[in-house]
Amino acid sequence: MEEIKRVEPRTLSGFMELLPQDQIKFNEMLQTIRKTYELYGFLPQETPIIEASEVLLAKAGGETEKQIYSFKKGDKDLSLRFDLTVPLAKYVAEYYNDLTFPYRRYQIGKVFRGERAQKGRYREFYQCDIDIIGDGKLSIINDAEIPSIIYTTFKNLGFSNFVIKINNRKILNGLFDELDIAEKMTDILIIIDKLEKIGMEAVKEELSKLGLDNDKIEKIEEFLNISGTTDEKIVKLNELNFNSEIFKKGLEELTEVIKYVRLFKVDEENFVIDLTIARGLDYYTGTVYETNLKGYESIGSVCSGGRYENLAGYYTKKDLPGVGISIGLTRLFYNLKELGLLATKQKSISKIDIITMGVGVENAVEISNVLRDNNIPNEIYKEDSKTKAKFSYANNLEIPYVIVIGEEELQTKKYTLKNMVTGEQEMLTINDIISRIK
Amino acid sequence: MEEIKRVEPRTLSGFMELLPQDQIKFNEMLQTIRKTYELYGFLPQETPIIEASEVLLAKAGGETEKQIYSFKKGDKDLSLRFDLTVPLAKYVAEYYNDLTFPYRRYQIGKVFRGERAQKGRYREFYQCDIDIIGDGKLSIINDAEIPSIIYTTFKNLGFSNFVIKINNRKILNGLFDELDIAEKMTDILIIIDKLEKIGMEAVKEELSKLGLDNDKIEKIEEFLNISGTTDEKIVKLNELNFNSEIFKKGLEELTEVIKYVRLFKVDEENFVIDLTIARGLDYYTGTVYETNLKGYESIGSVCSGGRYENLAGYYTKKDLPGVGISIGLTRLFYNLKELGLLATKQKSISKIDIITMGVGVENAVEISNVLRDNNIPNEIYKEDSKTKAKFSYANNLEIPYVIVIGEEELQTKKYTLKNMVTGEQEMLTINDIISRIK
Repeated sequence: MEEIKRVEPRTLSGFMELLPQDQIKFNEMLQTIRKTYELYGFLPQETPIIEASEVLLAKAGGETEKQIYSFKKGDKDLSLRFDLTVPLAKYVAEYYNDLTFPYRRYQIGKVFRGERAQKGRYREFYQCDIDIIGDGKLSIINDAEIPSIIYTTFKNLGFSNFVIKINNRKILNGLFDELDIAEKMTDILIIIDKLEKIGMEAVKEELSKLGLDNDKIEKIEEFLNISGTTDEKIVKLNELNFNSEIFKKGLEELTEVIKYVRLFKVDEENFVIDLTIARGLDYYTGTVYETNLKGYESIGSVCSGGRYENLAGYYTKKDLPGVGISIGLTRLFYNLKELGLLATKQKSISKIDIITMGVGVENAVEISNVLRDNNIPNEIYKEDSKTKAKFSYANNLEIPYVIVIGEEELQTKKYTLKNMVTGEQEMLTINDIISRIK
Repeated sequence: MEEIKRVEPRTLSGFMELLPQDQIKFNEMLQTIRKTYELYGFLPQETPIIEASEVLLAKAGGETEKQIYSFKKGDKDLSLRFDLTVPLAKYVAEYYNDLTFPYRRYQIGKVFRGERAQKGRYREFYQCDIDIIGDGKLSIINDAEIPSIIYTTFKNLGFSNFVIKINNRKILNGLFDELDIAEKMTDILIIIDKLEKIGMEAVKEELSKLGLDNDKIEKIEEFLNISGTTDEKIVKLNELNFNSEIFKKGLEELTEVIKYVRLFKVDEENFVIDLTIARGLDYYTGTVYETNLKGYESIGSVCSGGRYENLAGYYTKKDLPGVGISIGLTRLFYNLKELGLLATKQKSISKIDIITMGVGVENAVEISNVLRDNNIPNEIYKEDSKTKAKFSYANNLEIPYVIVIGEEELQTKKYTLKNMVTGEQEMLTINDIISRIK
């Protein structure tokens, strides 16, 4: 090859790229999430990564808009999707007549945000979303199915020590309604959202600075201090005896959600009512969820979402209430790896590596075919290398079994099966090998 | 909601977006390809969609470069990947020390090309690639494994009537070497590549215009006219008695590939030697492949690739020969749909829809749980609707079974299982339902 100018091969910071053993694990998690979502009957959806800026940014603004990758191609203003919710809204409005409601869909795909680079923050990352969209109305029971999906998903991912926090925005809104401070709701919610980080005294101070009198701050504190079991919390919320209709509605919804969450057999260990969580301030209107890994709260919520009144108001007049959640898998994977919680067990896809010794590679092909016909992932080592190199390949990739084919094997039609973990060797027929592996 | 300016929800032309039943089929095909690649032990790979322009465009130029989506974010020049080969080259050069060679990987993902919009051409589309990369050398037997993978993949996708065309670039190069017209090789290959479209006479005319004398044109015609069975073609190639070393090497490689393709049990119906295919002129150096669906040659090759001498010369001094193929799934899917060849059978993921009649939805939850525990995708119809609407939902989504729960069912613990295709109804225990569905 003529002399060429070489470029340093590199991957941009903020973009995840994995070595094979981690990629196998990542894909396994992705597949587990997909399979779990499908167990609940959700339909697959896939929207383009590139959309017209006008469509994608119909609602956006502020911080999000600054992070979006936008560019021109020809005379078109294009943007990369920054979440899977806006594309869902577009999709439902666009294909409304072709869809059956409630429309239950999942989408698993990459989204893009040009955030400031920092540890564990990615600019290209997977979201794994499910949403249930009603046509005009949507039963509150759907809000209880969501924690069941979170529960089953995280169980299937191998977690047991996690907690799904459930709240209802109408309860928070009802509190402000009751105290007649609804106009300050957004500011107050921002302050309450910081409770875990800054503590009650600091929250009260900030509320005071906002101009709230002591009576009202005390009421808020009393509300935020509600504790105990799930049932005790519901009793205490009832005992507040608020007159606000919106509060009553929220409490009724929360009570119904908790009843159904139990019917869905979500373990009491794995869910709580948390009256402080609010989520996206201008979006969610009812039930909201966050999920924490116990002992690792610092990594934040690993699965969040909630109920919204109207999915697609920027695209259609249709009234489309919905409820959904999202798992940020790229970030979760990063955190699990950092915390040493990734049980990476598999460095190869092949279960068997077939090696020839002193005979031609052609003698390996038939066996490889038969294994494949029996659904056993396998490969042939085909290079003209020394025996040591052949075994090194299988060793490095931790392929669990090696079949050795030599003169003796060809004559006896019994092949050496070596267990690469224990070192054990046996001479077996191909049929015996198949039943052994299966 | 306050009055808002609405945006017409739309999807850009050149971007595929499917309704659920097509998406189910698309995902099924994607999954079949993934599973087949894994049966051969290929490792998963996933590179970012966004790369530094400098890295991605190290080699690019001409037509491809014009199509690339490039943009600035901050002070960074970024580009969207336009194939999966350049990212593979970057990856292997970047992680060379962490990989085990031969490195066998697959990548399935979207790539982006701002092509002129036309029917069946997509700007965002899936490629499903496999490649085997050697460190310094790579056995020719790998070139024979590739048609086996193509064969198994298309068989698994449900095709039987397809043909894998196999050639070797060294045979073509050897012909030019033999005729001492190597300096005109590129021009001649471009002309030969048009043979199927324009016919032999037009090809000869163009060769003459290029300044080739009649003797040489006759030799080329003789070469291109080689026909018969695979074995007859190999005999005729040998009978040309060319002295060119490169020709001899090519013929030797092709002969070996054919021998192994047969060992891999690729049906004689499904492969041919086609001496006219050349593929990417400045890239492939040995075996090349194209795949056609018989009777639908107009849609072009549905799976192509070949052997290249050096994968990553723009990133590393290391000598990294490889062989690989790519399936352009988005385009294939479009064509199959247009041709009416898509057997779309499934409009739902759920196998069972659970409906309550005259009793509360809470009575459906336990059954849904049990079905899910038995790995049967199902859902509960939760909305407060009339019976007709409940059945319409299952009908529209063609969910194959409905379980009906009413007063009688609750008392007898036997539930009505309705087969939505045949209309048959039975009263069964939950265990009987599970065995019936499985």
